[in-house]
Amino acid sequence: MKALQVLVIGGVAAGASFAARARRLSESAQITVIERGPDVSFANCGLPYHIGGEIPVRDVLAMQTPASLKALLNVDVRTRSEAVRIDRQNKRVRVHDLQTGQSEWLPYDKLMLAPGAAPRIPAIPGIKDSRIHALRNLADMDRIAAATESGMRAVVVGAGFIGLEMAEQLHRKGLTVEVVQSGPQVLSQIDAKMAMLLGNELAHHDIKLHLNEQIVRFEGQDDVLHCHLASGGKLDADFVVMSIGVEPDSPLAREAGLALGARGHIVVNDFMQTSDADIYAAGDVIETADRVFGDQVSVPLGGPANRQGRVAADHLFLKERARPYPGSLGTAIVRVFEVAAGATGWTEKRLKTAGRAYSITTVNDLHHASYFPGAKPLTVSILWEPETGVLLGAQAAGYEGVDKRLDVLATAISAKMTVEDLCHLELAYAPPFGSAKDIINLAGFAACNQRDGLVSTVSELPADSSVQIVDVRGKALADANPVPGAINIPMPMLRGNLDKLDSSRPVVTVCALGKNSYFASRVLRQNGFDVKSLGGGLKVLMNARNPEKQ
Amino acid sequence: MKALQVLVIGGVAAGASFAARARRLSESAQITVIERGPDVSFANCGLPYHIGGEIPVRDVLAMQTPASLKALLNVDVRTRSEAVRIDRQNKRVRVHDLQTGQSEWLPYDKLMLAPGAAPRIPAIPGIKDSRIHALRNLADMDRIAAATESGMRAVVVGAGFIGLEMAEQLHRKGLTVEVVQSGPQVLSQIDAKMAMLLGNELAHHDIKLHLNEQIVRFEGQDDVLHCHLASGGKLDADFVVMSIGVEPDSPLAREAGLALGARGHIVVNDFMQTSDADIYAAGDVIETADRVFGDQVSVPLGGPANRQGRVAADHLFLKERARPYPGSLGTAIVRVFEVAAGATGWTEKRLKTAGRAYSITTVNDLHHASYFPGAKPLTVSILWEPETGVLLGAQAAGYEGVDKRLDVLATAISAKMTVEDLCHLELAYAPPFGSAKDIINLAGFAACNQRDGLVSTVSELPADSSVQIVDVRGKALADANPVPGAINIPMPMLRGNLDKLDSSRPVVTVCALGKNSYFASRVLRQNGFDVKSLGGGLKVLMNARNPEKQ
Repeated sequence: MKALQVLVIGGVAAGASFAARARRLSESAQITVIERGPDVSFANCGLPYHIGGEIPVRDVLAMQTPASLKALLNVDVRTRSEAVRIDRQNKRVRVHDLQTGQSEWLPYDKLMLAPGAAPRIPAIPGIKDSRIHALRNLADMDRIAAATESGMRAVVVGAGFIGLEMAEQLHRKGLTVEVVQSGPQVLSQIDAKMAMLLGNELAHHDIKLHLNEQIVRFEGQDDVLHCHLASGGKLDADFVVMSIGVEPDSPLAREAGLALGARGHIVVNDFMQTSDADIYAAGDVIETADRVFGDQVSVPLGGPANRQGRVAADHLFLKERARPYPGSLGTAIVRVFEVAAGATGWTEKRLKTAGRAYSITTVNDLHHASYFPGAKPLTVSILWEPETGVLLGAQAAGYEGVDKRLDVLATAISAKMTVEDLCHLELAYAPPFGSAKDIINLAGFAACNQRDGLVSTVSELPADSSVQIVDVRGKALADANPVPGAINIPMPMLRGNLDKLDSSRPVVTVCALGKNSYFASRVLRQNGFDVKSLGGGLKVLMNARNPEKQ
Repeated sequence: MKALQVLVIGGVAAGASFAARARRLSESAQITVIERGPDVSFANCGLPYHIGGEIPVRDVLAMQTPASLKALLNVDVRTRSEAVRIDRQNKRVRVHDLQTGQSEWLPYDKLMLAPGAAPRIPAIPGIKDSRIHALRNLADMDRIAAATESGMRAVVVGAGFIGLEMAEQLHRKGLTVEVVQSGPQVLSQIDAKMAMLLGNELAHHDIKLHLNEQIVRFEGQDDVLHCHLASGGKLDADFVVMSIGVEPDSPLAREAGLALGARGHIVVNDFMQTSDADIYAAGDVIETADRVFGDQVSVPLGGPANRQGRVAADHLFLKERARPYPGSLGTAIVRVFEVAAGATGWTEKRLKTAGRAYSITTVNDLHHASYFPGAKPLTVSILWEPETGVLLGAQAAGYEGVDKRLDVLATAISAKMTVEDLCHLELAYAPPFGSAKDIINLAGFAACNQRDGLVSTVSELPADSSVQIVDVRGKALADANPVPGAINIPMPMLRGNLDKLDSSRPVVTVCALGKNSYFASRVLRQNGFDVKSLGGGLKVLMNARNPEKQ
């Protein structure tokens, strides 16, 4: 019997996982990987950290070589080889050897498309200047590492995951860094309040952030690159990195007539088959089902890419025993100096835009037992369906334990858990690791209080002057950072001072973190007041980095 | 209308949570807390860490005082007051004031019993020696802190959570520490292999561990306390701490005729009501449903206690809107110097003893991306139902990220997830936090490979000499730590050296961590061999603390 010919286009996350899994399932298949770049199976998420020197040794990023893959997996890898055409009728791919300049047809029985996504580069004047870079592979990384040195002025365009990592690492290398972001916040993948901590952290490290701003034109001179802003000013740079997002690398698929989605991603079924059943696709180039609502989404992240490659190989070799890909949540996290923030599932912004019903609960606590040394502030926000309490999304921001809470919440969302379920998650507790009531439990408690009508929350201070704002923080904190128009009655004194409030006027209670204001709202509600509590507290409205100073 | 009289016996975890939640739900109830000790609502899980000086300031452990609870919650707290009798007929409790020596009857409409559990003290000769201590409250802590000093010889009896924490903290204080454990491993709450890392860590810090050993008699002399061992030897000590478990503090409940379980715990329903509907109980004194199978279990831990107190208050005041307690998983973790280990749900031991069907999967990986500085080894073990793949229990051991994996797995178990579900958990990944394929995903992959019949695993090296052991580690590792009787064929050389193996004899493949041996088993299986892979690798069979040296 002739061996099955399996051809893989793209040898990084999805392609490499597919090839490795395929080999485990079939020793007899002939597996060939075509990779345009000089490297396969490299650690693309590690690239920024080598530029900044946090990963000092370059070699650890080049995890495999064609030779090591041949030895371990008996897979043939051709680097610097570009697939230039898919001939579906004859089941063959035209491959161009970038070194020799020669081309040939490679036959396939099954084809995997995993070309990834390319950094988006806007067509604005001056964009071709050699000081403007983007980061996709090891070669880009080497170029950026060579082009940057301490004392230079860098402009990072785009404050998404890569942009934030690059800003941090260029600062680490000693460059002066400014960040230009088109929207009103950094990291548009999370909600504005949760992103405050990241913005504060950039400022804390003297990285200037230009929000609601765009570069409309670059003007290169010998000794400086002027970055002209939409608002009229300009930034002077020695180095620019573009990180405003990625675009699916799908021209080959389009030309081959495969079905593409609205934004150019390859459409696949639950087993990663494209509109041609003999062609699979996986990774940043495809769109998949959203795991919460089932909409079509593109989630260009390493985790989904790796698992999609595996699903495709299972479908090819395990046949009916293969299990479908359950969709993507978009769980993601970024570290910026000492802080981290991330999200899983849907954000408030996205729910609002889509017109879906939601409630939001925000809680603040410490990442482990308050009395154990090193406890750091942490904020968790959950989005849930008002009718059922089912979780729709979650976010976390803080110094430690952010990844842990996101992982628990991603698991809970995948399991279609409700806010009630969060109350009784029994999480690992010893003082160095957590609290007897973890912040995840607290989020469940607070959301249930909302569901049960025990508390009403607002997310902003009231603008209406007929509302009495009652600040229940201690006097010292209230004096240091007063809330305009508020009356200060520290929580322990509240019951004895109800006569200071007008029971005919509505009240909003506030405190630093949202806990005492809830307690106060319970006291007031039971004494006949129409009262709401500021959910999540004053923290993000004042200084997300130093809530203890509030 | 007369205010509802709510009486709470016990003012720490469950009792304090109950009182606080009760006050949020009712401003009008009269809430009184009776506490035998001098302190309420103290941080009992923090006690060992103050003894060792890791929590330097004592005051942070005394989180509330009667005065602060009065101010914040309008709750009356009576410390040094012992409830000595419950008169259910007249709904009153006899309370003895330990300071004045006077007694009085306090009436109740609703009673909460949260007296906790007491350290188990064996009735062996010499046990009354003043150098023998147990740790339950702040007063015990103060006594132990005063009785210990650098240079002393300490014997810790029992290597459970408290015993391990005490061993670590006494060592930190400069004492020479020996640990006596009745069973064959430390931390009987987890499986033996997962406990190896903890045992190695004690040894690494020169803490001598006496396994399968008991103290049968203490013999006190002026300058030394001889601890006589069942095996015949003796240990000389200046200080002994007993940490062999706890017993429910239920004599009061027993005397009042409340239903108790087989081991003396108070029996409650899902809303924490005892056999007397006006009396609730919560915390270490009760038994609850096990969350996996529904058996009756006692889980004397802070997390469940706090949440049970809350459930009872909800039942009392929210009535039919209250939600039942879903049972306890027994999620727990301990840190011992640089390492941590813990469990959630059922262990292999417990499943075996109960005669329940299970499969086990053990995987090793690094706690975050291998190429990112500081990646530390981590082991995860999952127990699952062979028929359905549903998770029954999980354990983790390592240096970093142990708590995170336990929390994800506790959440997955609560959601009745299967091993297939673990494959596609989309966890937060950036190089400082995790891997594109997290160890949780790897556990899912490996378990699915078992379920799908792609691999058969063994958990011990074969004793039968007819079995060929194939060690697929690199030559240097295999030479440094050879496996007796094994033939070494490094994985990359395997396909070219199949003729070195006898295809008529069964094979077991081995490697350090279990990954390459799985890969090798796939190659051999597809080449006609009857092959099994050593699950989890040689790690725990050699040196759990330094797997990289294997």
